[in-house]
Amino acid sequence: MKIRELEQITHEPDALAAILDGIAAAPEAPPARWFPLSGFSPEHAAAPQLISYVEARRAEFCFGPDGSRITRLRAALKKHELHGFIIPRADEHQGEYVPLRADRLNWISGFTGSAGVAVVMRDNAAIFIDGRYTLQVRDQVDSDIWSYESLYDNPPAKWLQSNLSSGQRLGYDPRLHTINEVSALRKACLASNAILVACNDNPLDAIWDDQPPPPIAAVSEQGIEFAGRSADDKRHQIGDVLLELGIDATVLTAPDSIAWLLNIRGGDVPRTPLPLSFAVLHSDGTVDLFIDERKLVTDVKSAFGEEVRRHRPDRLLEVLQDLGAQELHVQLCSRTCADWFRTVLEDSGATVKRGPDPCVAFKARKNEVELEGMRAAHRRDGAALTSFLCWLDTHAPHGEVDELKAEAQLHAFRAQNPELEDLSFDTISGAGSNGAIVHYRVTEATNQALEPGSLYLVDSGGQYRDGTTDVTRTVAIGTPTHEMRDRFTRVLQGHIRLARVEFPESTSGAQLDVLARMALWEAGLDYDHGTGHGVGSYLAVHEGPQNISRRLVNVPLEPGMIVSNEPGYYKTGEYGIRVENLVAVIRGGTPRHGEREMLRFETLTLAPIDTRLVLTDMLSASELEWLNTYHARVRETLMPLVDDVTAEWLKKATAAIQ
Amino acid sequence: MKIRELEQITHEPDALAAILDGIAAAPEAPPARWFPLSGFSPEHAAAPQLISYVEARRAEFCFGPDGSRITRLRAALKKHELHGFIIPRADEHQGEYVPLRADRLNWISGFTGSAGVAVVMRDNAAIFIDGRYTLQVRDQVDSDIWSYESLYDNPPAKWLQSNLSSGQRLGYDPRLHTINEVSALRKACLASNAILVACNDNPLDAIWDDQPPPPIAAVSEQGIEFAGRSADDKRHQIGDVLLELGIDATVLTAPDSIAWLLNIRGGDVPRTPLPLSFAVLHSDGTVDLFIDERKLVTDVKSAFGEEVRRHRPDRLLEVLQDLGAQELHVQLCSRTCADWFRTVLEDSGATVKRGPDPCVAFKARKNEVELEGMRAAHRRDGAALTSFLCWLDTHAPHGEVDELKAEAQLHAFRAQNPELEDLSFDTISGAGSNGAIVHYRVTEATNQALEPGSLYLVDSGGQYRDGTTDVTRTVAIGTPTHEMRDRFTRVLQGHIRLARVEFPESTSGAQLDVLARMALWEAGLDYDHGTGHGVGSYLAVHEGPQNISRRLVNVPLEPGMIVSNEPGYYKTGEYGIRVENLVAVIRGGTPRHGEREMLRFETLTLAPIDTRLVLTDMLSASELEWLNTYHARVRETLMPLVDDVTAEWLKKATAAIQ
Repeated sequence: MKIRELEQITHEPDALAAILDGIAAAPEAPPARWFPLSGFSPEHAAAPQLISYVEARRAEFCFGPDGSRITRLRAALKKHELHGFIIPRADEHQGEYVPLRADRLNWISGFTGSAGVAVVMRDNAAIFIDGRYTLQVRDQVDSDIWSYESLYDNPPAKWLQSNLSSGQRLGYDPRLHTINEVSALRKACLASNAILVACNDNPLDAIWDDQPPPPIAAVSEQGIEFAGRSADDKRHQIGDVLLELGIDATVLTAPDSIAWLLNIRGGDVPRTPLPLSFAVLHSDGTVDLFIDERKLVTDVKSAFGEEVRRHRPDRLLEVLQDLGAQELHVQLCSRTCADWFRTVLEDSGATVKRGPDPCVAFKARKNEVELEGMRAAHRRDGAALTSFLCWLDTHAPHGEVDELKAEAQLHAFRAQNPELEDLSFDTISGAGSNGAIVHYRVTEATNQALEPGSLYLVDSGGQYRDGTTDVTRTVAIGTPTHEMRDRFTRVLQGHIRLARVEFPESTSGAQLDVLARMALWEAGLDYDHGTGHGVGSYLAVHEGPQNISRRLVNVPLEPGMIVSNEPGYYKTGEYGIRVENLVAVIRGGTPRHGEREMLRFETLTLAPIDTRLVLTDMLSASELEWLNTYHARVRETLMPLVDDVTAEWLKKATAAIQ
Repeated sequence: MKIRELEQITHEPDALAAILDGIAAAPEAPPARWFPLSGFSPEHAAAPQLISYVEARRAEFCFGPDGSRITRLRAALKKHELHGFIIPRADEHQGEYVPLRADRLNWISGFTGSAGVAVVMRDNAAIFIDGRYTLQVRDQVDSDIWSYESLYDNPPAKWLQSNLSSGQRLGYDPRLHTINEVSALRKACLASNAILVACNDNPLDAIWDDQPPPPIAAVSEQGIEFAGRSADDKRHQIGDVLLELGIDATVLTAPDSIAWLLNIRGGDVPRTPLPLSFAVLHSDGTVDLFIDERKLVTDVKSAFGEEVRRHRPDRLLEVLQDLGAQELHVQLCSRTCADWFRTVLEDSGATVKRGPDPCVAFKARKNEVELEGMRAAHRRDGAALTSFLCWLDTHAPHGEVDELKAEAQLHAFRAQNPELEDLSFDTISGAGSNGAIVHYRVTEATNQALEPGSLYLVDSGGQYRDGTTDVTRTVAIGTPTHEMRDRFTRVLQGHIRLARVEFPESTSGAQLDVLARMALWEAGLDYDHGTGHGVGSYLAVHEGPQNISRRLVNVPLEPGMIVSNEPGYYKTGEYGIRVENLVAVIRGGTPRHGEREMLRFETLTLAPIDTRLVLTDMLSASELEWLNTYHARVRETLMPLVDDVTAEWLKKATAAIQ
């Protein structure tokens, strides 16, 4: 469909086309959700036309493999006197998801994984991926053009040292690399006597004719009934933090920090309710917000108040330069802020101080309202998951279920809740050997049936206005082997030991991680991923700064923090096991006759754990007690929320074991 | 006694006097040990004269409080146009112990603690100490002259910022501060716009008329039957490490690194068989060693071989400047090397690279011969400690024993072994409330009787040619309270959980620390010290780089490393509990049906743990099994090594409990 057709609907067809393009470039959403952005009511006679326009545009954003692109990119490099160019899977915000417009890595290479980097030199090209994607990269990326490299063993900075010659010029887009990343690239170039060239005009964008525009999804207010604190309150608190540090302003580039700070939510990237924008937070608590006004259709504009000055995104440079002209001290986070901000500020006269994004630590500690919301979301989500587990137990043993069907059914149960806004990530629905692939995503090609005598692993979550969930259950299909039960029980022991631990203040997740692994270690087993990640409150399902991991990250677990508890075990080619609940750090008080205040975890997730997989004798009395107490709580909480069939099933599934 | 009297004994009375002075300035040792240094045989008629000369000289090295010293120091500062001077408790080697000559902090302030710093300004002075010494400093240091500051809450660098005025000059001795410490001082001065002045002539030494000379104690070879590897082998291995790093040489200033590298031992500081010296290790495996030749009386000289070039200590500057003249790349450890070395090297043209002392990691991983030696030393030491524990059980309940008597008796049992070279540290002999003082050292003034109904804590160790020991036992005197038993059992559980854990490679002590604390945490209790430290092989009882601690130190536990396992609990004013064994990291193989190789701890220490303090019901079956198995091993190993009375007692003390 052409813009001309829009002329019949509106007097400003170009403006409407631009909005519809932005909608098409945002994650797919029900029309009801994006219609208000178009300025038309869903009842308007032209509604079907608008819908088909958006669908057609989305189909036009073509990412299929096309070897000619790299040829054109090399021509562009030559024109710019560059010998190479580096293409990260990142946008200006360094989030886990990137909008279509920023999926340059996919466009140039065909690679659709969630992490990676490409380097295109005049005569060779390399794509850097991690262990999850060693098979996928072979399917998607043409080995005639690209060499495959390990993101960890031979990262770009190392690879470049042996592939750059003296005097060669390596280009990079300074908006797409963090301050720390550019430092590493600079070192690599220095070691090769090469020149690192910041390309303010990205040469890949220049040859990407049909590059999608920035996404446009509606921004709404996250009301105080969910956020628990006003944005005004937050802005002034963080402003005071800056003041204390002798900082005049900080530039926020992480969308979840801005969303938290201003109590707003959006939909510009998949599975996470984030509006993409930039913000300058001043020590007086005021904010300069750079956001596309076309996203602001609800009464969110008035909610910002006078202390949030809204600007068009293209005014960003000017406002940053003005901070420089005032010779202000501006804090940037070296790990998340793009290097472009540093150079603009420094070049215009500002003093750049490095320090963490000040929102991160506050965002991590949920307040009482957010915690109550998380609890409510988990009751709702647990009821849906339990209904699914009951359905699975009824249908799977007869061989009727495959991974895709199971995934769809689980989604359907969740979607019965009108409060469900989205899934919090793509469901991992892994039968048998697919369960052993830690970041598995089922496709038509990989879809497996749930076979008797196998295990089924399902890791999923929902986004609700009052909270974000993330839960994994492993289910026996038919009769499990003794080995499966032994290993499941060890994983469960790890889960329980972590769930039960009491610990003093200033304990980090790194110190507790061993509790989740010990029972596996005793049998010469382990798992190669972290034990827990932070989770947002109707925000990203992965957030920092806390975690539970073998990596020694020195961030104490503090009251209000949410973290996942997800030990696992994976037998390649056979089965995967993971038991995941979310927990909140809460004050445990001082035990009777004790001397020190302790913290502990409150388990938020509510869903039965498959007791058919438990070798009861391996559990200690207190571990068994934890399991039975947890199941009693699951039963009591969820019984009123599920249908009669599920309720009957739930009773059995949560019956105490001995 | 005057030098003139020595004229009757020797034709070179000055040289003999200098040697005897050096002997007097070294830790007190039996005359048999230092006689060879004098050139006289112990049978010589003049032997008694030499002994009394040394004793008299030692008595003359006066450290008693003397307020006039600070007045004289201030006069000296004025002369040097300094406004302040900083006096650390450190020598050029940054070890745990300093020789008398370097105990400047004690001499100027009267403070005898093992850690501290003083800053003397023209009008005020401060002494910085940690929590262990808050009471002691009041007793020893004149509050009319000194203010007391916390080494951690208000460290010198912070204090100086508010006590230095713009333009003032702060002096420091660059041989006594590490590269990192001088960085911190430089920052502090910069913040105050003050000037940091390196004093190559220490103004305190200039006014210390009777400053002891450097210590002279005999250096001997640590034979390959104890060291397990030749020095030649070690030198070339570390040389190759330097080569690989593109480093030409490294300066070793830590005496235990040099002792390990060259397979030598000495006696220049208390409780640790260290010769003080400096060494330059070259990437070709050769060494320039700067050592007082008068210490080398045994055949150690020939043992060095041709690749160790010995120099007089006063040639150090010249040789370092020669490295600079050759424009070599020299590695220095910022945490242990004095800043003086950095400036000398840089000023003479060398390129200084910062990196860890390369001996440390190798020294930490004991070879099979060293491990066998540690096992033998622990059998010997365990027999002595067991004899003591039997003696204690016989005498203490009748009120006959006090802390001093117990300490002496334990020492006597250890000394029955002719292999005992020294204690590995001053024994902590703490009855009742004194047991709650973590670094307690009994004196006549603090000496307490071991009363019925109390606990007695004894932490001690021996130095043997084949190994170093460190062990703590807590003993019930009479009938313990239920609370004491509850808390002892929790400490013991922590000890056992750590002792039993199996863990994969690249696990650090920080990750395992929680195992030692969990049982205490459950009751709202904890202890405020680390759980484990590295231990040398006939070297320092505290060595790095590994530890087990709440501090997130990212050093993996590797096979051959020795570490202590010493959780505790301290009830101020009432009692202290600690259970300490040394353990070695060994390969545990892959468990049956397991997939990964595991490491585990082999417990080295052999001595009964007081089962009268154990509440058996609190222990899990596997914890109880560990205790009974350990006790069976203690019994079987030590029975042949103790007398009949002790053997009978040992049988009962190690009887299995249920």
